[in-house]
Amino acid sequence: MKRHLISAADLTRDDAVLILDTAEEMARVADRPIKKLPTLRGRTVVNLFFEDSTRTRISFEAAAKRLSADVINFSAKGSSVSKGESLKDTALTLEAMGADAVVIRHHDSGAPHRLATSGWIGGSVVNAGDGTHEHPTQALLDAFTMRRRLGEGVGSDLSGRRITVVGDILHSRVARSNVHLLTTLGAEVTLVAPPTLVPIGVQQWPCEVSYDLDAVLAKSDAVMMLRVQRERMNAAFFPTEREYARRYGLDGERMARMPEHAIVMHPGPMNRGMEITAEVADSPRCTAVEQVTNGVSIRMAVLYLLLGGNEPALTAGTGTSTRTEESK
Amino acid sequence: MKRHLISAADLTRDDAVLILDTAEEMARVADRPIKKLPTLRGRTVVNLFFEDSTRTRISFEAAAKRLSADVINFSAKGSSVSKGESLKDTALTLEAMGADAVVIRHHDSGAPHRLATSGWIGGSVVNAGDGTHEHPTQALLDAFTMRRRLGEGVGSDLSGRRITVVGDILHSRVARSNVHLLTTLGAEVTLVAPPTLVPIGVQQWPCEVSYDLDAVLAKSDAVMMLRVQRERMNAAFFPTEREYARRYGLDGERMARMPEHAIVMHPGPMNRGMEITAEVADSPRCTAVEQVTNGVSIRMAVLYLLLGGNEPALTAGTGTSTRTEESK
Amino acid sequence: MKRHLISAADLTRDDAVLILDTAEEMARVADRPIKKLPTLRGRTVVNLFFEDSTRTRISFEAAAKRLSADVINFSAKGSSVSKGESLKDTALTLEAMGADAVVIRHHDSGAPHRLATSGWIGGSVVNAGDGTHEHPTQALLDAFTMRRRLGEGVGSDLSGRRITVVGDILHSRVARSNVHLLTTLGAEVTLVAPPTLVPIGVQQWPCEVSYDLDAVLAKSDAVMMLRVQRERMNAAFFPTEREYARRYGLDGERMARMPEHAIVMHPGPMNRGMEITAEVADSPRCTAVEQVTNGVSIRMAVLYLLLGGNEPALTAGTGTSTRTEESK
Repeated sequence: MKRHLISAADLTRDDAVLILDTAEEMARVADRPIKKLPTLRGRTVVNLFFEDSTRTRISFEAAAKRLSADVINFSAKGSSVSKGESLKDTALTLEAMGADAVVIRHHDSGAPHRLATSGWIGGSVVNAGDGTHEHPTQALLDAFTMRRRLGEGVGSDLSGRRITVVGDILHSRVARSNVHLLTTLGAEVTLVAPPTLVPIGVQQWPCEVSYDLDAVLAKSDAVMMLRVQRERMNAAFFPTEREYARRYGLDGERMARMPEHAIVMHPGPMNRGMEITAEVADSPRCTAVEQVTNGVSIRMAVLYLLLGGNEPALTAGTGTSTRTEESK
Repeated sequence: MKRHLISAADLTRDDAVLILDTAEEMARVADRPIKKLPTLRGRTVVNLFFEDSTRTRISFEAAAKRLSADVINFSAKGSSVSKGESLKDTALTLEAMGADAVVIRHHDSGAPHRLATSGWIGGSVVNAGDGTHEHPTQALLDAFTMRRRLGEGVGSDLSGRRITVVGDILHSRVARSNVHLLTTLGAEVTLVAPPTLVPIGVQQWPCEVSYDLDAVLAKSDAVMMLRVQRERMNAAFFPTEREYARRYGLDGERMARMPEHAIVMHPGPMNRGMEITAEVADSPRCTAVEQVTNGVSIRMAVLYLLLGGNEPALTAGTGTSTRTEESK
Repeated sequence: MKRHLISAADLTRDDAVLILDTAEEMARVADRPIKKLPTLRGRTVVNLFFEDSTRTRISFEAAAKRLSADVINFSAKGSSVSKGESLKDTALTLEAMGADAVVIRHHDSGAPHRLATSGWIGGSVVNAGDGTHEHPTQALLDAFTMRRRLGEGVGSDLSGRRITVVGDILHSRVARSNVHLLTTLGAEVTLVAPPTLVPIGVQQWPCEVSYDLDAVLAKSDAVMMLRVQRERMNAAFFPTEREYARRYGLDGERMARMPEHAIVMHPGPMNRGMEITAEVADSPRCTAVEQVTNGVSIRMAVLYLLLGGNEPALTAGTGTSTRTEESK
């Protein structure tokens, strides 16, 4: 695996399966008497957030702490960044302070890539969401959730699974990362969106596009509802709320058309009544809460694989080769 | 004891005494060479603050860290809460991330109760102050301070002690929690306040009400001065500052009317010159600073008792059964 | 050494050399398999910041965590300080919570001194920058960087070295601390600034003053460029940007007049194009990034020396007497 995680598009099938398998191991840490591994003791993980995202920040923070890393939160609000410090100076500072990993969230698409390829940083860069570009750990936790819920075992991918992604594809880094990763893992992806919310050039993407949600539900193994960004809803390109909910929202009736084994996914937080009804959101078929739990396991796996180089690897399936906190 | 701490009114006498006794043990941790216990290693405590309160947040943070828990601070400002995420979604997220305890401060009375009874959260909920409702750990640290200062030993309650609480009872969660807890512990409580700042229905409270501070001072074992909220002072129901200080403020002359052993308490931060003069605030009879210290011990005790289930209990009075950091 | 670090002016030559030597030891911690020392386990370091300074806060946070201390960040924004709590009440609160060290950044010159001499605090106070007064750990990290880069060994000072400090001396706590410390360490300091940015009374300072940068470059072992505060640039006393850069900025041509061994220093973040050109900032002679790295070592050394009293001292030069995390 590379030293950074910038884009789901960079992952090979084997990289991705390794991360999912490692995350299965990490998920078991929660069952230990002491729910921690000592693997990253002495390592420093910096959460460098130029955009508010408490959920993602907390998830990375919890993951890093469960691996015994030291975590430093750096919100770019009220920092010297607002005094005109460049991304370069910030990066050099974090590097100089000994950051082993920088988890970056940035409003500009491409900022994590710049950070990783600039030579400013010796540690690992993890993209925690950049502009409308990518959010690779979200796609990984989604894939992890699908693999578990659809009954695929450790070591396997999502070959032949049919996944539908519904909503504002145009502005969604979650959709973008999912299309890349799911395709790499062998799944067939269909995007469903209002015509104004489909990106130009989507014909080059390795997926289908449909404007008719009802038509694709019956042949989906998973339906992923994207969050509607309320701040975009009054824009010219956006349907009215009512129209959106009627045509692209998931309610109980629509969910009933899905195959019995199929799941409903949502990256959260959900707008109940908009893209998803409360009935669907609270049904056992909706994996939104599991996705959050799985997010911590995935982020542990990513940090572990990027930073844990010298440590004995976790052995998938046995759990015994892990140097545990208890056995120290 | 229950799994949550929402209201001082929920505590039995034995619960309350157990917490006070455990806090006595916790207070001794500060005397160890390494001022920590390993009890909550691998546990995650989330400080979920919808209202600013650095003092309370820091106190819980210090308490959790002294028990070796991992602490995640979640200020609802600038979080997805401000993007319209409901308390439910926030709760499900924290639960899914594996929070073992959620310490919640909320402007709405009842929010912690909703969190605890909703089934959204598997861990413990600790109320760190909700609206004008309750602030149970404040009442516990106040009781702990009284028990120590008035010479009651471990195992005892506050039977027969006479406590006077002075100020804006109407808006004070501190007063409310204290009335409940002190009564449970056997004390007799008198509230003193301007008539406009006494809650309707106070007749049903298990305490006396007086409008005459001077009359009750001589028979008080402890006088608790509430903080005047400056933002309320220009409201119609509020006396002028001068009038308030003259009738309900505690100065040296008034303090001299208290019994020799009696103490002055204040939850802080104090408005010197308003509800308390600098002379009184800085006198050795004023326990404001001790209350802060005791707050950490009380919060350690509460987190320990709520979360430490499987661990060997601290044995009150011996201090030897505690599995210490050093002996590991 | 004293219990606090308020001003570089308080340090004797031996104090300063001890800190530099200890920082050399601390710098080696980064080379260990586990990049931490257990020295300050169970100690609590509070970062009390009344002014934004992410860089300095992170540096102290990283330093404290590398010594295994618990760190609590207290930003005075949105705290009860903004509700009118005095520095005294804040100090008493932190003291009562058991803070072993308070690292304070304050907009008022003298606030750390007040904190340290008030008797409010039993722990150590470290000045992380107060108004236009002092920033002693910055001066220490600068001296550490010079000693290393100019080839002086452990145990030595900067006797006979010639250091030039360029920029807005009037408002610079960095300049003030450097003048004190460098003089104590035996160096000869020359200040270069526009006449309006030289403090009244500078004649009493133990240094030279010049208005002609070009004249002093050739005889400097180190040239320290101060950051131009953009918010001051339109003030009456400030030259135009263009004029400032022309007369007091460091570009490649000017750098070429410096002796071959001489270095360029900057406390960061740099205004490329103003006080320093990109060519100089990115040249190997510029130590800005090293200074950041050294800042963590210096802050580890300061916290260690102030708080680590009972622990076996680090032995300069051997590295073996340090009780390590691994050997526990």
